[in-house]
Amino acid sequence: MMNQAIAGGDPVGIVGMGLIGGSLGLDLRARGVPVRALVHRPETAERARQRGLADAVSTDPAVLADCALVVLALPLDRLLTPDPALLAALPPAAVITDVGSVKAPVLACWDERLAGRFVAGHPMAGTANAGVEAGEIDLFQGRPWVATPTGRTDPAALAAVQGLAEALGARWILCDPDQHDRAVALISHLPVLVSAALLQAADRGAAGQPEATADSSPAAGLPELVRALASSGFADTTRVGAGNPELGTLMARCNREALLAGLADYRRALDGLESLVRQRSWSELQAELRHCQALRPPFL
Amino acid sequence: MMNQAIAGGDPVGIVGMGLIGGSLGLDLRARGVPVRALVHRPETAERARQRGLADAVSTDPAVLADCALVVLALPLDRLLTPDPALLAALPPAAVITDVGSVKAPVLACWDERLAGRFVAGHPMAGTANAGVEAGEIDLFQGRPWVATPTGRTDPAALAAVQGLAEALGARWILCDPDQHDRAVALISHLPVLVSAALLQAADRGAAGQPEATADSSPAAGLPELVRALASSGFADTTRVGAGNPELGTLMARCNREALLAGLADYRRALDGLESLVRQRSWSELQAELRHCQALRPPFL
Repeated sequence: MMNQAIAGGDPVGIVGMGLIGGSLGLDLRARGVPVRALVHRPETAERARQRGLADAVSTDPAVLADCALVVLALPLDRLLTPDPALLAALPPAAVITDVGSVKAPVLACWDERLAGRFVAGHPMAGTANAGVEAGEIDLFQGRPWVATPTGRTDPAALAAVQGLAEALGARWILCDPDQHDRAVALISHLPVLVSAALLQAADRGAAGQPEATADSSPAAGLPELVRALASSGFADTTRVGAGNPELGTLMARCNREALLAGLADYRRALDGLESLVRQRSWSELQAELRHCQALRPPFL
Repeated sequence: MMNQAIAGGDPVGIVGMGLIGGSLGLDLRARGVPVRALVHRPETAERARQRGLADAVSTDPAVLADCALVVLALPLDRLLTPDPALLAALPPAAVITDVGSVKAPVLACWDERLAGRFVAGHPMAGTANAGVEAGEIDLFQGRPWVATPTGRTDPAALAAVQGLAEALGARWILCDPDQHDRAVALISHLPVLVSAALLQAADRGAAGQPEATADSSPAAGLPELVRALASSGFADTTRVGAGNPELGTLMARCNREALLAGLADYRRALDGLESLVRQRSWSELQAELRHCQALRPPFL
């Protein structure tokens, strides 16, 4: 499965030792591929060394010098405003790829700059953890690894990243960058806001709205009651809304247009269900819920 | 823990052998309490007997004759339009309780009729299963069992139901019927619609809306892409939206006012988050998501 870029003995460079970067380092080392890591802070370098996430870890971009493939495993904001020292240190012939969860803005920043050697990628693996302690072995096993090549992308560069993804057990998926961003808006970024709003509604609905009149204000104890009675259904529906706030905000910022389009789709759907409740159209509501039941399995 | 009503050797009657009724039967029999079950269909009776859900199972309401306590474990619609033969067969001195997930309409139907002997209850235990195969041992262990007594409720009747709930390991919670209905609207019935709308949005948003213009219609493949890329976050957020359609509809029907109020709370919350995205108020969005992160643990 491993192609020339990672099987030829050349080291792979990883920029950033968070969940994705650290997991990549562990997986590659487990397959005998030498790993060179570039990090921002000396303390991160020290901890990455202790955890064995790479063969060499440095805060000096020169650590990437011999790499044939470099993975930019940076948060989206740092990926979109790259450090000039990093740009200067990228080896001139190396294939460069990223792991950002929104692709159009990443391509706008990197595609022309690297003239065919850049492959926009998105390994869709996550846990609730972040930072240098988060990396874990086999994180990518069975997970999608999306690449969004452009007309400019060198086929050999694309094949190199495919070789990396498949060597780590990921499912390789190619698609258009805008399609990727619309898809993740619907299945990943929209659910964060949908779920967060449910937490706020349960909190504020139980506490009473500021505009509530006296006769609609809840009796004392409703805020405690909603917390005492919430069950696994509520826990599941609100999990992603209570996720990493920095990450949620960054996704919204970098995928704003697609997220707003997804919110419009969502509003239409919720309005439709609410109308059925308002009009007491119970058989229609049941038919809609039955359709939802059928919709879900293909997403699993 | 067991009080006179279930420790005195008198049989407990259960009407309906679905998830709740069957589980009650198994738990009571495991504690040596004789159980008499009334069911609607002969095939259900036969299967309930085979599964050992009760000591006696019949389609004849006379089976309830000797019971000091009768649990109406019926779906809400059947609970709200009780069979005259059932009403005639309820022993004149017995305590009667129910397990319906909405309390005000149940009280409107039963409270005056039984003049103090009726205790409105809601054991909040569920699985994805329903019907005579669904009952399981220890379903109520550690789960809330809410009762909503009225000014009419006989304290001895209330104590009898509390004894039953606590004997089965449930957490006994007393509250006002309207408060109960508002709480379950927010934490149980609202999430069904919020989650169902997300499934519809992911489906329709990927397929293109009927009103979409040619230049906004998605390229081929987006419907497949959203399904290929959906991860555990999407699965969690959409679980309750793909639940039992009959149950979801019944809850909406029987708790319509509180659900509509919850939907209004939800709409305000989602509008607020959407405004922040629209206005690019990223630090405010991050603060809101951080607040959501803090809101969730007390619900778990």
